[in-house]
Amino acid sequence: MRSDLTDLSHLRRLLAQAPGPDTAALEGATARNGQLTKPPGALGRLEELAIWYAGWRGDPRPRIAAPQVIVFAGNHGVAAQGVSAFPPEVTEQMVLNFRAGGAAINQLAEAAGAKMDVHALDLDQPTADFTQAPAMSEAACLAALRCGWDAVDADADLLVVGEMGIGNTTPAAALCHALFGGAAEDWTGRGTGVDDAALALKTRVVAEGVARHADAAADGLDLLARLGGREIAAMAGAIAAARLMRIPVLLDGFICCAAAACLQDVAPAALDHALAGHLSAEGAHGALLERLNKAPLLSLGLRLGEGSGAALAIGVLKGAVACHSGMATFAEAGVSGA
Amino acid sequence: MRSDLTDLSHLRRLLAQAPGPDTAALEGATARNGQLTKPPGALGRLEELAIWYAGWRGDPRPRIAAPQVIVFAGNHGVAAQGVSAFPPEVTEQMVLNFRAGGAAINQLAEAAGAKMDVHALDLDQPTADFTQAPAMSEAACLAALRCGWDAVDADADLLVVGEMGIGNTTPAAALCHALFGGAAEDWTGRGTGVDDAALALKTRVVAEGVARHADAAADGLDLLARLGGREIAAMAGAIAAARLMRIPVLLDGFICCAAAACLQDVAPAALDHALAGHLSAEGAHGALLERLNKAPLLSLGLRLGEGSGAALAIGVLKGAVACHSGMATFAEAGVSGA
Repeated sequence: MRSDLTDLSHLRRLLAQAPGPDTAALEGATARNGQLTKPPGALGRLEELAIWYAGWRGDPRPRIAAPQVIVFAGNHGVAAQGVSAFPPEVTEQMVLNFRAGGAAINQLAEAAGAKMDVHALDLDQPTADFTQAPAMSEAACLAALRCGWDAVDADADLLVVGEMGIGNTTPAAALCHALFGGAAEDWTGRGTGVDDAALALKTRVVAEGVARHADAAADGLDLLARLGGREIAAMAGAIAAARLMRIPVLLDGFICCAAAACLQDVAPAALDHALAGHLSAEGAHGALLERLNKAPLLSLGLRLGEGSGAALAIGVLKGAVACHSGMATFAEAGVSGA
Repeated sequence: MRSDLTDLSHLRRLLAQAPGPDTAALEGATARNGQLTKPPGALGRLEELAIWYAGWRGDPRPRIAAPQVIVFAGNHGVAAQGVSAFPPEVTEQMVLNFRAGGAAINQLAEAAGAKMDVHALDLDQPTADFTQAPAMSEAACLAALRCGWDAVDADADLLVVGEMGIGNTTPAAALCHALFGGAAEDWTGRGTGVDDAALALKTRVVAEGVARHADAAADGLDLLARLGGREIAAMAGAIAAARLMRIPVLLDGFICCAAAACLQDVAPAALDHALAGHLSAEGAHGALLERLNKAPLLSLGLRLGEGSGAALAIGVLKGAVACHSGMATFAEAGVSGA
């Protein structure tokens, strides 16, 4: 879907006016659910998932036929401070790995029957170190948002956005600290596996960056530009585009949810089309999900990013929708009720 | 696989002598896992799942290509006491629904790419009411175990067993109470949705049945005959056959796990090839999983049986194995290490 976003305030307006789920489809799906050949409520959360999905797709008996996984990659000036266990060149090496089909997300997208796209955003131009200057200008942030927006297939019926960007749990933690307060150490974790010294450094860097920019930023989109990164803004753009197109989204881990949190900050209903695919092992993801009011579908200790946890959750949502739309009713099957 | 089980003690001997996982495959898979293009441990529990699966299949780089779901159905004399919210004829009606493709398990098996088989065991001959007599003779129990054993495809590479049997949370609760002690009410729950009065009745029935048979039963297989049911014994037979054939198993909910517990009681390593697919909303399933020392893959509030929760978990295990066997190594992808 082509973006005509002219500035950040245009996105604020679009999110504020975005349509909700289809009421008739919600009602039709709820009625159908009550007639299926199972005891009431016996499919547990699968029932609520199917009805939610039906509402967003405007179809009381939907199918999931075209899930899309998009991985965005970006580089971060703040990585030069030594906040990651891996060197920055790994971002580009992993993009090549995604394109060659060798990463975890390639296997998980294929297993889920999802199309996978990869967008590398100006890897040779890392964002500025946010302890020194805004990570991105408003124009650079807008370009990244548009990249994400345009990457969403209009005919996708489910979206997962993932990321790759050495050092990017640091801007994600900074965004959370700026959006939700608390102490910097409440939001920093070990990312790809940093030691105690690097974690302490990362926490100082986050505190410094937030202190520098928080007063100058009016809301989550300002913070996204000042503290975020290109791949984080692109994820936000894709999630926003999906909201406008009523394409349901499964959120991935800490970085994906930090991008999503920027949208929620400017429009409280901006994430109504999104579920938490999983609970990551990255320390602050659970606290972030609480702030987003999302209960994860899976909790398997993943902390890889790339969209991996959300891609794994596609199967759960597919199962829920397959039951809802494929099962016989009591009347059709001639099964006696309770 | 044809069963030549001659008596219950034959099964006891087979389980006691069953081979463990392949050590070389475990070592090979562990080594491979350490070379894949991800930070160490970043795939969380998926890593341990893939290595476990590799060991049981004897292949350090396995694939899951032929999962099998088997649903066993049986009727229960104890149902006449009014322990279920549904009438006993629903067992046969649901078997027809399984065969017509209209049940939840049909949709979930198809979504998981699994073959599904249905075996109805003498539905016109309910077991005896275990408060009055043994539910089954040893011969009837052996016949049901053999049915389950023979139902397992020798070329399946993953097994899910599910059940249908109006009233069967009552024998499952009785088995747990007899195997693990505590009070009857520790093991009874609302099943398909009974009210307080039926739950109190169910608890009395369980206490009465266990009191009648516990002293006469030497171990879990004796209890399986006296307190179980045909579909429960068939599930135990299938799980045992899979153990001998080193076919990994995903356990379903309370009734499936009660069947499995009878095997564990006669051979502590009988369930080493099995994982808990999910945590059911049936009250005592969590306590039962603790006794089996199994952590569930999913926890979505399902309480349907049929193998539904385990079938949904097939996608998680497939994702784990796909990552393990499909990902590039650091050397193959030219990605720098930490």
